[in-house]
Amino acid sequence: MATHRFDPNFTENVISAMGPKTSPRLRQLMTGLIQHVHDFARENELTVDEWMAGVKMLNWAGQMSDDKRNEGQLVCDVIGLESLVDEITFKLAEEAKDAPTATAILGPFFRADTPYRENGADIVVTKPKDGEMAFMHGQVMDFVTKKPLVGATVEVWQASTNGLYEQQDDDQVEFNLRGKFKTDADGRYYFYCLRPTPYPVPNDGPAGKMLELMDRHPFRPAHIHIIATYDGYRPLTTQIFDRKDKYLDNDSVFAVKDSLVVDFVERKDDPQAGLELKYDVKLVKDEAQNGV
Amino acid sequence: MATHRFDPNFTENVISAMGPKTSPRLRQLMTGLIQHVHDFARENELTVDEWMAGVKMLNWAGQMSDDKRNEGQLVCDVIGLESLVDEITFKLAEEAKDAPTATAILGPFFRADTPYRENGADIVVTKPKDGEMAFMHGQVMDFVTKKPLVGATVEVWQASTNGLYEQQDDDQVEFNLRGKFKTDADGRYYFYCLRPTPYPVPNDGPAGKMLELMDRHPFRPAHIHIIATYDGYRPLTTQIFDRKDKYLDNDSVFAVKDSLVVDFVERKDDPQAGLELKYDVKLVKDEAQNGV
Repeated sequence: MATHRFDPNFTENVISAMGPKTSPRLRQLMTGLIQHVHDFARENELTVDEWMAGVKMLNWAGQMSDDKRNEGQLVCDVIGLESLVDEITFKLAEEAKDAPTATAILGPFFRADTPYRENGADIVVTKPKDGEMAFMHGQVMDFVTKKPLVGATVEVWQASTNGLYEQQDDDQVEFNLRGKFKTDADGRYYFYCLRPTPYPVPNDGPAGKMLELMDRHPFRPAHIHIIATYDGYRPLTTQIFDRKDKYLDNDSVFAVKDSLVVDFVERKDDPQAGLELKYDVKLVKDEAQNGV
Repeated sequence: MATHRFDPNFTENVISAMGPKTSPRLRQLMTGLIQHVHDFARENELTVDEWMAGVKMLNWAGQMSDDKRNEGQLVCDVIGLESLVDEITFKLAEEAKDAPTATAILGPFFRADTPYRENGADIVVTKPKDGEMAFMHGQVMDFVTKKPLVGATVEVWQASTNGLYEQQDDDQVEFNLRGKFKTDADGRYYFYCLRPTPYPVPNDGPAGKMLELMDRHPFRPAHIHIIATYDGYRPLTTQIFDRKDKYLDNDSVFAVKDSLVVDFVERKDDPQAGLELKYDVKLVKDEAQNGV
């Protein structure tokens, strides 16, 4: 079947070196990975110099990574891999009646220690001069019954207008532009935030170098991160995007999906904000957790 | 054409994000890489958790790498990628009349500052107790005319019986088990060395972890590294393997090729060595360099 000029048994030899104690899933994944990596090398007649350039990029990614930064993740992001495995994981969770809790993609700027704030609070503690204030609100409800979920948690975080999250920026107070909210007796949450603005992913590492080599811009469209949780329901981790953003159609990490695009509308008679965003969150019961 | 349940336009969107200033070769490689990585993820329904486990392994490889160690390379080696790109590069160089000098794969233990020794020297300066001494010799010649090449350089290096190269081992003197030789008036080189012994690749990083997960051993069959050079000829970088080695058929980095397997034979009446290895080196004229 080989349509190339190279040893036709090589790939099978590498795959069959796996021993009997390999787990079935790992065997499946390594078989697929080895086959695709080898096919890629043969189809494109990858040279030693080109391969070594790739190895240097991968090592560089690891060397830049630490507790605060995951450059290996960012390298995957700029070729769309995180967004793709997100789609796959979401679909699997949707289809499986006994699915475990859907995996949360937190991104590099989530903080587990974000404090609760009261509904109505303003998360813009350090006010940027060029920020547009918005009132964000909505209801958390059961996906099927549409019943409001009282006491659900909605956690949000966003970058400031300079493109930096608070932990990247000495000029922002701690926990600026982030907060956790509990839904009220009607299942409602509400707070003041910024209309988000686009920002570039970090360009000082291999991901930035790859973007440059591919003649691509590094910008992400404006977005707000959201995690919603409620006992007995699958957690929802998502990002919502401003429909008016110029990078909506060419997010550098390909995370935009049509259903995640939202509209900021004019808000009248509120001295705290000239814009308003309504975003309802629908959670799906975790069948496994409920023993169904 | 999509036979899966995921967004059929996603991969094309990622590929077509590349701008007009991308070089044609980079565009080809990134197109192939993105297509294969996405196909791998979809075909195996790769989850977020599995992908993140892979990202951690890649970051770990970079974090372990420095001037003395290239773990990213080793990760590629255990899935056969270095051996494959070596085959591809060698074939391209063979076929192209105007090929540039063939790329040298030096491996992580080459030292550029290895000194010349006289023919007949013993490179086993630090003698291991369990080493078998061998007399290695051969002729460097023109691949086509078989004419001996006088004053060609043959450089060799090998690990000691404990599996360590001298720079990894405080108990070996500097440049132990390595040397450069100039061929004599008959194009011959000769010296004393160890019959090489098998050794495991380092298992304290992600490459070792991958081998463990794939239920594979980490051993490389016994080998001697060789680089031969002569003005106007393409440099040859290779490894030769002992036919009697138990790992010959399952090298952990898949570098063995039939043409590289050699026989150590009994050597009589030499107090310095009980074994002998004859290995002739045939070099190919560098047509480009000679203006042909």
